[in-house]
Amino acid sequence: MASNKLKPAARVSGQRQDVWSIINEAAANSPNQPIINLGQGFFGYNPPKFILNAAKEALDRVECNQYSPTKGRPRLKKALADAYSPFWGRELNPDTEVTITTGANEGMLSAFMAFIEQGDEVIVFEPFFDQYISNIEMPGGKVRCVPLQPPKTGATETTSAAEWTVDFDQLEKTITPKTKMIVLNTPHNPVGKVFSKDELQRIGDLCVKHQIIILSDEVYDRLFYVPFTRMATLSPEIERLTLTVGSAGKNFYATGWRVGWLIGQPHLLQHVSAAHTRICFTSVSPLQEACAVGFEQAEEQGFWRDTITEMKDKMDRFNQVWPELGLPYSEPEGGYFVLVNMAKVKIPADYPFPEHVASRPRDFKLAWFLIQEVGVAAIPPTEFYTEENQHLAEDYIRFAVCKEDQVLEDAKERLRGLKKYMQ
Amino acid sequence: MASNKLKPAARVSGQRQDVWSIINEAAANSPNQPIINLGQGFFGYNPPKFILNAAKEALDRVECNQYSPTKGRPRLKKALADAYSPFWGRELNPDTEVTITTGANEGMLSAFMAFIEQGDEVIVFEPFFDQYISNIEMPGGKVRCVPLQPPKTGATETTSAAEWTVDFDQLEKTITPKTKMIVLNTPHNPVGKVFSKDELQRIGDLCVKHQIIILSDEVYDRLFYVPFTRMATLSPEIERLTLTVGSAGKNFYATGWRVGWLIGQPHLLQHVSAAHTRICFTSVSPLQEACAVGFEQAEEQGFWRDTITEMKDKMDRFNQVWPELGLPYSEPEGGYFVLVNMAKVKIPADYPFPEHVASRPRDFKLAWFLIQEVGVAAIPPTEFYTEENQHLAEDYIRFAVCKEDQVLEDAKERLRGLKKYMQ
Repeated sequence: MASNKLKPAARVSGQRQDVWSIINEAAANSPNQPIINLGQGFFGYNPPKFILNAAKEALDRVECNQYSPTKGRPRLKKALADAYSPFWGRELNPDTEVTITTGANEGMLSAFMAFIEQGDEVIVFEPFFDQYISNIEMPGGKVRCVPLQPPKTGATETTSAAEWTVDFDQLEKTITPKTKMIVLNTPHNPVGKVFSKDELQRIGDLCVKHQIIILSDEVYDRLFYVPFTRMATLSPEIERLTLTVGSAGKNFYATGWRVGWLIGQPHLLQHVSAAHTRICFTSVSPLQEACAVGFEQAEEQGFWRDTITEMKDKMDRFNQVWPELGLPYSEPEGGYFVLVNMAKVKIPADYPFPEHVASRPRDFKLAWFLIQEVGVAAIPPTEFYTEENQHLAEDYIRFAVCKEDQVLEDAKERLRGLKKYMQ
Repeated sequence: MASNKLKPAARVSGQRQDVWSIINEAAANSPNQPIINLGQGFFGYNPPKFILNAAKEALDRVECNQYSPTKGRPRLKKALADAYSPFWGRELNPDTEVTITTGANEGMLSAFMAFIEQGDEVIVFEPFFDQYISNIEMPGGKVRCVPLQPPKTGATETTSAAEWTVDFDQLEKTITPKTKMIVLNTPHNPVGKVFSKDELQRIGDLCVKHQIIILSDEVYDRLFYVPFTRMATLSPEIERLTLTVGSAGKNFYATGWRVGWLIGQPHLLQHVSAAHTRICFTSVSPLQEACAVGFEQAEEQGFWRDTITEMKDKMDRFNQVWPELGLPYSEPEGGYFVLVNMAKVKIPADYPFPEHVASRPRDFKLAWFLIQEVGVAAIPPTEFYTEENQHLAEDYIRFAVCKEDQVLEDAKERLRGLKKYMQ
């Protein structure tokens, strides 16, 4: 229909259907209505009252409804500097070491736009959050993947998410003179791994040796069930290379608020701010103000403590269903996702999958099967792999537990329906 | 300090200081405190109560605080389709012909990212909104400028903003085989021009002839004081090429809300949506919901009528000060900016300008002088020109009148202080 002159740019054309729309469409058309959606990682409940009230109060103030400074509202930058200085062990400068972005997603894009030129390489661990890839490719970057090695006994026994490990020889071999950045994610989505201090030190040492910028996606930083180390805090040499990414949406149960930030030293961060200005100009004002109040009060309200207790409780209670079924899983060390190994689930040989599912790895079929047969939506993780490494995860399914307790109980009851398909 | 391996990408490096930070810093450091800020186009008052209340109600609903679909909330897309279908003279399809973006700014970037490949050319009229340029250059586009021709008697008499005209010969000569898009802005910032139906038809005809995508920035579409024509409504051939950009921030006095949209036919719009997904993933949920209520109720609340009446009243009363001073201006046909010609203002020959102002055209000096001598901040429009054409606007200054009435009266009183500098 469109003439050649109207054709889209390569960066947006010829994309296959993404996992989110496949799963959402399957859920909408399943006979099991309403579907219990443990797919996408949005919260099934509201932000805490003190933050919602702050948002409502901000809406009554003229200056909170108008443009904020491009680098973010001073009150939010100060609240973040105050909240994170204790972790850094020094006073962060709110004006030069914190910048606000339109969600962590646009924050990461801003970082890639700030540093990546055509042909520069970016190392990413598999599985990866899918948006990383298009965000790296938009400024012309090349993705170089290093898969986390899954636990060898993952198909037969429950193991810690810590047993998804980095092959450091492979990591070092992946570094070339064109390696400009590396992306870390801890706590990790979808694995639930919290990188150990030793692992981070070894990665950081390699980055110092080769002068590689570290983009540390720490959006689940308030949800850890084992000791959590922040990359930037390991040494001054590593901090100098590190941009830390955070998310008020993940911290405060408000994925639709689009308030994120980066923390980093001015010699790096100034360029991220410049890119952000060119991409979104500025970020949403009244919700920045509400998040400022969130960071000012979270500690005294006991919110950081409660968020861990409550999420760990959801995680533990939900995961009780897997031993009942004899299905092993990766015990998460952080975050709100759990990877369950479904190698033992036997899908009938003649099961009718639509072509766009039949052509994908087994986990897509498992996800489709779960929606159709038990009415629970979850995410196939091979979407987060390059084709070469999809075999590592094709028996896994990702469940999000950031949902109301009753929803999780209902999901467990439905999942018990898998018993008759167990090998 | 940073080693070569940490150097920023060309797209963010080596930028000179922008007009916003120059003016804001000058205002913050002026002896005339508090400065009256008629510079940036943010509103000095709040969105209407029915929209603020809708935002507060949305904050109490779980689904309004979580991710919205990447193309926008269905309720907002439907409200926009319903609101704009009468202008289009047909039913717009909310699912395929409306997409929500993170402000109009990110909407325009999404359009450029969707269609521009390295070396493609984009025609832009001067003066232009400054973000256009970096947004075009980010995907590798080349900006080709066509200046609006200012009224010949602009330095000596007040004329209509309509007298800033398009040189159609020059426009046609600027078109090359590489011309992929043209950017229109009507009502125009900073000129206040509403492009006539005849002008739009001639531009549209050229675009049909050469199959050029028209990005029509109509963010001031509810503020017109003469008949307003929308580019997309001229003919089916022109509509097929046109992406119309809108802004809830401009419509509802909430520049900090970051809710914008594009309307266009699916063969173009699907690619904009794909780009938007890769840039911001999704836009702010509770404020999308509030804007949906805004569009559902604005007509019956009389808001669209009142917004014109009230802004025109502010404009007229503010502009009464210029005849008192003998300064001519461009009588705006739309929007909330007025360009005033200050050729007659005599700046003392030995006036001490800092280097970053002294090195810029006369309008930067005028703006600096106004801040220092009378305590009113306004914007020098040569920032919105390429160097080649800056001489066309170096005697003009842009004032924003979207401020409280008393602020405008106070500004007028201060501006009367210019009398002693008149030639």
